[in-house]
Amino acid sequence: MQSRSPHVISFQHEDTGPMVERVRVAILGASGYTGAELVRLLSRHPRVTLAALTANRKAGQALAQVFPHLGGLDLPVLSSVEAVDWAGIDFVFCALPHGTTQALLRDLLDGPHGGRLRIADLSADFRLRDPEVYAQWYGHAHQAVDLQKEAVYGLTERNRTALKTARLVAVPGCYPTSAQLPLSPLLAAGLIETDPLIIDAKSGASGAGREAREGSLHCEVSEGVHAYGIGGTHRHTPEIEQELSLAAGRPVRVTFTPHLMPMNRGILSTIYVRLTEGTTVDALRDHLAATYAGEPFVRVVSASEAVHTRHVRGSNHVLIGVHADRSPGRAILVCAEDNLVKGASGQAIQDMNVMLGFEETLGLGQAPLFP
Amino acid sequence: MQSRSPHVISFQHEDTGPMVERVRVAILGASGYTGAELVRLLSRHPRVTLAALTANRKAGQALAQVFPHLGGLDLPVLSSVEAVDWAGIDFVFCALPHGTTQALLRDLLDGPHGGRLRIADLSADFRLRDPEVYAQWYGHAHQAVDLQKEAVYGLTERNRTALKTARLVAVPGCYPTSAQLPLSPLLAAGLIETDPLIIDAKSGASGAGREAREGSLHCEVSEGVHAYGIGGTHRHTPEIEQELSLAAGRPVRVTFTPHLMPMNRGILSTIYVRLTEGTTVDALRDHLAATYAGEPFVRVVSASEAVHTRHVRGSNHVLIGVHADRSPGRAILVCAEDNLVKGASGQAIQDMNVMLGFEETLGLGQAPLFP
Amino acid sequence: MQSRSPHVISFQHEDTGPMVERVRVAILGASGYTGAELVRLLSRHPRVTLAALTANRKAGQALAQVFPHLGGLDLPVLSSVEAVDWAGIDFVFCALPHGTTQALLRDLLDGPHGGRLRIADLSADFRLRDPEVYAQWYGHAHQAVDLQKEAVYGLTERNRTALKTARLVAVPGCYPTSAQLPLSPLLAAGLIETDPLIIDAKSGASGAGREAREGSLHCEVSEGVHAYGIGGTHRHTPEIEQELSLAAGRPVRVTFTPHLMPMNRGILSTIYVRLTEGTTVDALRDHLAATYAGEPFVRVVSASEAVHTRHVRGSNHVLIGVHADRSPGRAILVCAEDNLVKGASGQAIQDMNVMLGFEETLGLGQAPLFP
Amino acid sequence: MQSRSPHVISFQHEDTGPMVERVRVAILGASGYTGAELVRLLSRHPRVTLAALTANRKAGQALAQVFPHLGGLDLPVLSSVEAVDWAGIDFVFCALPHGTTQALLRDLLDGPHGGRLRIADLSADFRLRDPEVYAQWYGHAHQAVDLQKEAVYGLTERNRTALKTARLVAVPGCYPTSAQLPLSPLLAAGLIETDPLIIDAKSGASGAGREAREGSLHCEVSEGVHAYGIGGTHRHTPEIEQELSLAAGRPVRVTFTPHLMPMNRGILSTIYVRLTEGTTVDALRDHLAATYAGEPFVRVVSASEAVHTRHVRGSNHVLIGVHADRSPGRAILVCAEDNLVKGASGQAIQDMNVMLGFEETLGLGQAPLFP
Repeated sequence: MQSRSPHVISFQHEDTGPMVERVRVAILGASGYTGAELVRLLSRHPRVTLAALTANRKAGQALAQVFPHLGGLDLPVLSSVEAVDWAGIDFVFCALPHGTTQALLRDLLDGPHGGRLRIADLSADFRLRDPEVYAQWYGHAHQAVDLQKEAVYGLTERNRTALKTARLVAVPGCYPTSAQLPLSPLLAAGLIETDPLIIDAKSGASGAGREAREGSLHCEVSEGVHAYGIGGTHRHTPEIEQELSLAAGRPVRVTFTPHLMPMNRGILSTIYVRLTEGTTVDALRDHLAATYAGEPFVRVVSASEAVHTRHVRGSNHVLIGVHADRSPGRAILVCAEDNLVKGASGQAIQDMNVMLGFEETLGLGQAPLFP
Repeated sequence: MQSRSPHVISFQHEDTGPMVERVRVAILGASGYTGAELVRLLSRHPRVTLAALTANRKAGQALAQVFPHLGGLDLPVLSSVEAVDWAGIDFVFCALPHGTTQALLRDLLDGPHGGRLRIADLSADFRLRDPEVYAQWYGHAHQAVDLQKEAVYGLTERNRTALKTARLVAVPGCYPTSAQLPLSPLLAAGLIETDPLIIDAKSGASGAGREAREGSLHCEVSEGVHAYGIGGTHRHTPEIEQELSLAAGRPVRVTFTPHLMPMNRGILSTIYVRLTEGTTVDALRDHLAATYAGEPFVRVVSASEAVHTRHVRGSNHVLIGVHADRSPGRAILVCAEDNLVKGASGQAIQDMNVMLGFEETLGLGQAPLFP
Repeated sequence: MQSRSPHVISFQHEDTGPMVERVRVAILGASGYTGAELVRLLSRHPRVTLAALTANRKAGQALAQVFPHLGGLDLPVLSSVEAVDWAGIDFVFCALPHGTTQALLRDLLDGPHGGRLRIADLSADFRLRDPEVYAQWYGHAHQAVDLQKEAVYGLTERNRTALKTARLVAVPGCYPTSAQLPLSPLLAAGLIETDPLIIDAKSGASGAGREAREGSLHCEVSEGVHAYGIGGTHRHTPEIEQELSLAAGRPVRVTFTPHLMPMNRGILSTIYVRLTEGTTVDALRDHLAATYAGEPFVRVVSASEAVHTRHVRGSNHVLIGVHADRSPGRAILVCAEDNLVKGASGQAIQDMNVMLGFEETLGLGQAPLFP
Repeated sequence: MQSRSPHVISFQHEDTGPMVERVRVAILGASGYTGAELVRLLSRHPRVTLAALTANRKAGQALAQVFPHLGGLDLPVLSSVEAVDWAGIDFVFCALPHGTTQALLRDLLDGPHGGRLRIADLSADFRLRDPEVYAQWYGHAHQAVDLQKEAVYGLTERNRTALKTARLVAVPGCYPTSAQLPLSPLLAAGLIETDPLIIDAKSGASGAGREAREGSLHCEVSEGVHAYGIGGTHRHTPEIEQELSLAAGRPVRVTFTPHLMPMNRGILSTIYVRLTEGTTVDALRDHLAATYAGEPFVRVVSASEAVHTRHVRGSNHVLIGVHADRSPGRAILVCAEDNLVKGASGQAIQDMNVMLGFEETLGLGQAPLFP
């Protein structure tokens, strides 16, 4: 790598498996945490070549300068988006800030290589179906309404079939993933009431990204906890409601309270629901277990097993627990994920695997890292 | 102190104010975190002399050997409970494990000095009014039923008058304090429904005490979060329900989920309630603000202020926030305390101050420590 | 406080002791961590009234908006430096960024109230004696050379006499304090060689201040450690060498390696020295113990006691341990302080107490906060 | 797995590569952190089948009950050592506490399957060459002196050739690895003096294991730092000295100070050395870079790159930095590793790969996990 002094060497290992045909992947926005996480996982993916990494403000630098933990990998130098040779790209992961993606992807798909490219977008730009809802929550009209309509919502466990042929996938938000995986099957089956749905969610600090902000400093995050966006003002609220409404078959409104945790990775959602008449908590657990029985990444645990975020750290795994409340007719669901993996980059890779017809678990086989 | 080598010296400062008559205090169970916190605060209390510290398994050691951060103080050597000279004691803080206190306090109060002693018990032994409820949750009959009836529940803001003449005070549990302070006044005023009352509580690791247990290790607590005692199996549940029922004037059942946080101090309770017909969220906030307007330690913040546990760390302060949910008729309350101070030792000292007719804030004036 | 809504109340307690005459204090730069720490401690100081708090970019806000943990105090609103009424100020704490203080203090002392004001400056601007050394390390000529000469170096334990009459005190740096307290007496007594002096120092993240920088984010600081400024490029190096040279009576050069720790508060310096011919490790410990025997804030521990930063957290205490190495003729010193207290704001208050003839420990009597 | 309730499912993915012949591996002591780390890594190793996992006190449980983060894997139930069917085992990882391994391995190798088994022992039992040194540091005579002589010290980068035919390998200690990798080549080349060699090492809490001890509690480890075993009393001292002496060709004595860090994983060693006459710091860096140029897991960084433990977290990587001190003739080396991977389980797998003729990087290809 050109940025290294002559006497300094790379790690040498490359055990990513036998040479097969690989897709050439671009990551737009490789200098954020989700970008780095895509690189971490894709660098070991046996069917992927990382062909372009962009970071406009850091163009010309090696990714190792931005993320030294990736210093041992043989990677392309960071470039601007404009400098990408799209002729050499098959698949795009877009990990840019919310709001910056719409015009870019519209131009890209309208351009000379648009017919060939397939895209997984990790921003919130294409998650909401309704342009009016988008405008209401983001304060401006959507700039690519056609694409908004076309985009497939990329929660693999819910939309696997549509993903296979999708050109543009909107990768779900981290909080919405941890709400939908336990709730959507139960709403769809009519096992729980649509009201109340109280989602008390706890997220690690990486969810705020790598931007230098006072509220994300170690001194401001460690050794304490607080709620934010109380009362449903967090922008993940309409996404959660949109998808839960789809599952329930009627409009659903949620109470959603995110909390900033003194930890880096992980989301735990503790969810309070009411059973529909005649249902039992065991029936809820059985239904979720049956729903996810064939799923590689979602596991429903028994009533005696605890669900910790540390049990999924670094992996694409999701754990779901189902508990009876002592008040009859109520249940408590807990759902743990790694917000940077199943809540972002791992989910995006899972989507890509489905879109490209790869085995769905390729590149996502790492066991969680504990402690 | 006899345990120090001759060339090793103490911190010298003693600015605890002018010499006034002091009460002679014993702390039973000084080798736990709440015991140490009592020492930290009482060592600066202008009306207190620490006359006895007990820790049966560490009798004969200096407290500085057990808690080196208290090494600079001039303190009595740790003794067994049996070795305490009760003739020299006016007030007792009992910080022993749950279940060990009943027989001890009964014997003490029946003994030759029982007529003079006043006691603040930090265990759960005397918090529950009903012997049957106690037996149901603790698995054995209460061993001092008379004292159980006599004990005053020591949430100062609720029971100040009764505390003034109390001989035995049951200091509230850490979780129950953070539930009652926001909920009791609203239930008493009929501003919220008694059902549902969902308390999603997050506690620092010091709540588990200093006992060496696998689940309390740094590797098992840091960088992650999990719920425990889900569905109301935590022993603080009946205490919360007892006191909220008293406030509401009718039986109340709560949904209470504690979470273990990767931090040492602090409890944040996020509480989901329904307004009664005709009430508003502003009315809730106004009522709480009016209730606590004269209180030295409880502050109701405005809707735009965040409530962090780190804003009360090390202090006896409590912060309460009141927020409208986007679902009409629902509100979200947040309450932050330091579990070792207002949730235990600071509350106990506040009780003592009231019991002995001292200014209620004596020894509790420290501002929070941040960061 | 004007910024609060009507229904929101303050904490009420004010047990700062009997009314005595108080000095009127201004804190310049109250919006940083050291500024907040000054407020935390001075708000309980029985001889101080906080008369002015400045923060130019946040002028007009309540300090509680910037530091909600101080929300319970009755404090002046933040103002610009220009808006301070100097006629009402007796003593100034200057907690501004390095480099911004020189011109300000020169103008202030040359101004109409300059004859009356006394100042403790927490920046590095007046610590170095030699204008050339200053220029070399800070890249520009000193802007107030006369004051630089006049300023007294404020390590109380070393310069108590000079402090009594000082007009301007340069409060020592956090790292230099933890190096000098163990080393200066030993160098002055000729008990250790002047070479090598290896100081391996570990500091909490608050040492980097509250500025929003990528390297200070929770994700970048927690769960890891690294050295920085390796090889003596940290600007505390010349300060350490200046003061140790003074103590030794000849030029001293140190090897100083700071490390950023995944914690908020505390500095631990592990220091490697060689004994001079004929000396023993016990003699080192005895000499330090004798040196600090009358000191209220410094404690030399026995060989069997461990020195943790957590044992001084939140206090003005310093712990020093002295250990023999298994290589004959070598010793290892460990020194723990809270970088925001004895390493900054507590030290500044200790200086003020001496300058104004107060009892040296006033306002600094808090026991450490653990856990 | 027999311990799961019927409606609870496993993760399904098994992308460990094409079916090739696999060695059958036993892990003795699978309930500790190094045991779990072996399972995490070996479960993805393409040439390994986990055939037996032992944990005497937890025999009969699923590993998922002990380590829920490994709950998604298809693993044998925990058994006692006695219950292992050695006929079905090819390779043994021994992750038992120090002192318990000698008799066990002697009996195993003397038994009916001893001729076939090959062993990597992660304890300290076989690291020291000299039975007298062992007895001096461990307080009892070695119980398998013949094996002690036979065992190959398993720092792959130093002993690759001997490992190929070794029957019993003593996997290096975590601290010794981070001392040797930078120091051994420099001592062997005569580029640094043998005295002083000052190793100031900082380790994450997982190094203390999963045993429930007060000193390992979250409250006792987080938000602070301290040194322990000061003066060379840590049992890793003789191991470091043995190996550095071998490298230097003459007896070497080190000053070694371990510190307990408020983090889970990682060791950073900051090492202070003197150059031999005529050498330069660049020559040191060049020599290390050349030494490790072909090594898959060790990377020497340039002078401008920082070495963080967080840049190797979860991986078998080691980073080494070389810095000039401002005192001429002195250099500072920094070395970062993950104590559970390159400092224990990853190193053990690297040894196994060499012993069995596998590609050395098999199963160790994961990129570090950050943040």
